[in-house]
Amino acid sequence: MIDLNGQIPDLKGMSAEELGDLCDTLRSKIVDTVMRNGGHLSSNLGMVELTVALHYVFDFPKDKLIFDVGHQCYTHKLLTGRADRFSTLRKLGGISGFPKREESVYDCYNTGHAGTSISAALGIAKARDIKGEDFSVIAVIGDGSFNNGLVYEAFNSVSQINSNILIIINDNHMSISPTVGSMHEYLEELSAESEQRAKRKRHETIFERFGLSYDGVYDGNDLGCMIQKLTAIKAELKKRPIILHVVTKKGKGYLYCEENPQETHGISAGQAVSTEYSAVLGNTLTRMAEEDGRIVAVTAAMTPSLGLSQFFERYPERSIDVGICESHAAVVCAGLATEGMRPYYAVYSTFLQRAFDEVVVDICSQDLPVTLCIDRAGISGSDGETHQGEFDLSFLSLIPNLTIAVPKDTDEFCRMLRASASFGHPLAIRYPKDGFETFGGGDLQFGRWEKLREGGDCAIIACGERMISLALEAARRAAESGIECAVVNARFVKPLDRDMLDSLGQRCVVTMEDNALIGGLGSMVDGYYSLSGKLIKNFAYPDEFIPHGSVGELIKKYGISVDAVCRYIIANAHR
Amino acid sequence: MIDLNGQIPDLKGMSAEELGDLCDTLRSKIVDTVMRNGGHLSSNLGMVELTVALHYVFDFPKDKLIFDVGHQCYTHKLLTGRADRFSTLRKLGGISGFPKREESVYDCYNTGHAGTSISAALGIAKARDIKGEDFSVIAVIGDGSFNNGLVYEAFNSVSQINSNILIIINDNHMSISPTVGSMHEYLEELSAESEQRAKRKRHETIFERFGLSYDGVYDGNDLGCMIQKLTAIKAELKKRPIILHVVTKKGKGYLYCEENPQETHGISAGQAVSTEYSAVLGNTLTRMAEEDGRIVAVTAAMTPSLGLSQFFERYPERSIDVGICESHAAVVCAGLATEGMRPYYAVYSTFLQRAFDEVVVDICSQDLPVTLCIDRAGISGSDGETHQGEFDLSFLSLIPNLTIAVPKDTDEFCRMLRASASFGHPLAIRYPKDGFETFGGGDLQFGRWEKLREGGDCAIIACGERMISLALEAARRAAESGIECAVVNARFVKPLDRDMLDSLGQRCVVTMEDNALIGGLGSMVDGYYSLSGKLIKNFAYPDEFIPHGSVGELIKKYGISVDAVCRYIIANAHR
Repeated sequence: MIDLNGQIPDLKGMSAEELGDLCDTLRSKIVDTVMRNGGHLSSNLGMVELTVALHYVFDFPKDKLIFDVGHQCYTHKLLTGRADRFSTLRKLGGISGFPKREESVYDCYNTGHAGTSISAALGIAKARDIKGEDFSVIAVIGDGSFNNGLVYEAFNSVSQINSNILIIINDNHMSISPTVGSMHEYLEELSAESEQRAKRKRHETIFERFGLSYDGVYDGNDLGCMIQKLTAIKAELKKRPIILHVVTKKGKGYLYCEENPQETHGISAGQAVSTEYSAVLGNTLTRMAEEDGRIVAVTAAMTPSLGLSQFFERYPERSIDVGICESHAAVVCAGLATEGMRPYYAVYSTFLQRAFDEVVVDICSQDLPVTLCIDRAGISGSDGETHQGEFDLSFLSLIPNLTIAVPKDTDEFCRMLRASASFGHPLAIRYPKDGFETFGGGDLQFGRWEKLREGGDCAIIACGERMISLALEAARRAAESGIECAVVNARFVKPLDRDMLDSLGQRCVVTMEDNALIGGLGSMVDGYYSLSGKLIKNFAYPDEFIPHGSVGELIKKYGISVDAVCRYIIANAHR
Repeated sequence: MIDLNGQIPDLKGMSAEELGDLCDTLRSKIVDTVMRNGGHLSSNLGMVELTVALHYVFDFPKDKLIFDVGHQCYTHKLLTGRADRFSTLRKLGGISGFPKREESVYDCYNTGHAGTSISAALGIAKARDIKGEDFSVIAVIGDGSFNNGLVYEAFNSVSQINSNILIIINDNHMSISPTVGSMHEYLEELSAESEQRAKRKRHETIFERFGLSYDGVYDGNDLGCMIQKLTAIKAELKKRPIILHVVTKKGKGYLYCEENPQETHGISAGQAVSTEYSAVLGNTLTRMAEEDGRIVAVTAAMTPSLGLSQFFERYPERSIDVGICESHAAVVCAGLATEGMRPYYAVYSTFLQRAFDEVVVDICSQDLPVTLCIDRAGISGSDGETHQGEFDLSFLSLIPNLTIAVPKDTDEFCRMLRASASFGHPLAIRYPKDGFETFGGGDLQFGRWEKLREGGDCAIIACGERMISLALEAARRAAESGIECAVVNARFVKPLDRDMLDSLGQRCVVTMEDNALIGGLGSMVDGYYSLSGKLIKNFAYPDEFIPHGSVGELIKKYGISVDAVCRYIIANAHR
């Protein structure tokens, strides 16, 4: 077995047998590490041979390799001097699960959200041509990403930008959910036709329309075939842009993964017992839909992770998975709502950024009753910068007509969902993946906060389970030092509960949120109190991108902890 | 000549001759009004016959008609009871230049940004099918919008959503700039092939791949042909989704417009003499590019409006117009920057919303030296809600690694551009369309504000020409009442100039910005001063969508004026 260490193996000097052994080693390294650290499993297992072939044929880092989304880059990382540190995958301070320019010169472009690889490759190739340099630029993109509109926008300008790139479609028939849509069916059709096409005169594919020479379909898990194919293409790339269509097996080499690609797309490291907010979404929405025929569930390729599988099975005619098309999903919701439906659009916080304009223009400027169910809000953990959900309170709170709710626990989330059906305006509910506690509390009125604890020395205004939990603990501890803190559940970040804010007599105010400081709850409270003379301290994330690590580690690293809050209060409550 | 008034004309009872007369009347009404009020001219002239035919054949408002972007809806408005108020087009309180649900039941979906019509139509049709109702849903979309990725995302889910709609491609070969890209070339090709295709067996178009029956190409300015065609299609629509490809002449019926479609796309109402910031961008960037081979200019279909025609002519190999694809443009810029280029991405403030995620992830999380030149920032005026640029300071200031500059005049804009080439990080410069004044001032240091006037009673912190101008006038007036105000040019909204903020001893602070209050300069200043005990008053736009009207009228309507600021200062400076 080949020893993978911090060196870069000399693939070009290896025999076919040695390369085959290398693939085995890579595969077991990936399985071992992901089982321990969590991460993306099936997609990486499928990519081993294709990645080895790319490294055999091309000359990185002189040539440039861009992974769309980027979760399939593990083999690439193992081959580029990071094998010895690979055990730190997704750990705080360790190797990222996604390409990172900061980490290696072999990672030329950071990805994380779908569909950017072709546009980025065109930009890089255009720069090469302007500078008169000579290297190859390769984008590897899955069939799931292929649904995204960015891909079409990039295709549309391939001829115009006129800089040659190689696009490799890594077709494994899966997004996180099975890939949907006509482009997917078309790829399937091309695969089915492939053998006949080889024999007779090729007919034009859709890709030729965009000025790309199409070549496919080949077995991406056949190392010999991939090396041969890529070698031939490398020479052709000087002359024209090429699209290579390969099929890989998601989970390749591990039967359980091959048979369960959806469950093994992302693996979580072991964790405490929790209730997932997504399960509450799924159960509650399914029950609501029984009585309310207006309820429609919309997702962008992540139905199970968002807890909606049951709803989709039960109400297929009121379920829409549009593929990885967050903007389109938002506009479809707006259209549904103009006709009296009540769409619930479930989406991860970070991916909602893709639909920002459509939330502003289509949903909110028309004041339509669409409910955004925003999962993985706040720090999401081990996937790092491109997957943290620390911006949503900021980019949503600036939008007129939008109400923003942040449940303090899964019970309150359930009550918010039930209340939303009769709300009649745009609503965003943001929540983390896991719920650990419930805090009691009763009636829910839109725009009204609740006081969870009384105390005259300081008022802690917090939102979301993670912060409420820390706030209550900090208040208990401060009480031991004789400082009495009120704790307010700011369950609607917008609108602010002005009556509650006006009623707080404490001069010392602390805000706490699982969000960036700029534009979040704290900023809004600062603004509200700007003429009051109160002393306000905001606990929130600083103005930085937050890398990977566990949720608990990261929250603490960025200065939010019972200790820190307590310390501040004790020092300042009587200032 | 037919008299257009507040009634809805009975088209179905009209003879062909009467319908022809009606078209003439509509055309001259459009020309008269646009010449007086400003607005979209050529596109509306091209749409007269197609719109009349749609109203002749379909039954609005039962049937639903969605105009992509929406600037081509004038005939529709004139035919739906708004002719008598049409003279108020684009005036404060008058008829909007875009579809508005608030204005008429005949406007079923508000548009303004490109590419949403098909997604919205699918949502509406899906709601119809869920409810078991029976009506037709029609999206009219120009070939310019056809470049946008949303269109592809919508196509991709036509079969899956499985609700029949009619898509009409209104092909006039123009975005605001001439349409670019492969999809445009494909449409051209279909037009050229059209006659032959009618004679022989049809071959499959790209659209059939997406489950749409394609029918085209027809003359959209031939009223008889359109009526015949739409009548035939109406029956077919029960069975399948259809795409109808028509060619119209932009500017039809007015020779000057036909010959100058780009110049007559949008007409401005008469205004005071000004220097356009876009001209300064074009001139400065062209000069900079002479000496700096790294400079690349990128636009999304609006090259002339952004002042970049000269640059594009002079440096075609360093000019990229990607069509109406704001997200793609941002990623191309990021790709260029990873290879050492210095891309300048010029874009209207409101359309930059489309690239929010790509600015966050691709440009800023990679800390790449891309400069966003954000035109029409702040209130842009007569195009209304979907075109105002009042959110950019808010949605940009939350993004780590991004510096945000707001020049106080065109001279400072020029200095900022020159300084940007050696800056090396993501930079946004936001400015309005017109510059009227220059305020002097010297050196520019990134992150440093400048004091334009001293005064111990109050500090006015303002950004952008419009606000600096009002602030200086308010300070002069307050001085007449014995109140001395400092005026600070907050030319970098991010980072805040902490040294300057710390040096301001005045307890009374006023902020002024041409932006929404939430998340803008004022919020940032409030946050910075939250522990200071200062009394801060923010002048900015309230939490509402801002409708159409003139820039001056709107700024005043939302409470920002010399009077209001002066009144506040006099009452509060000595509180």
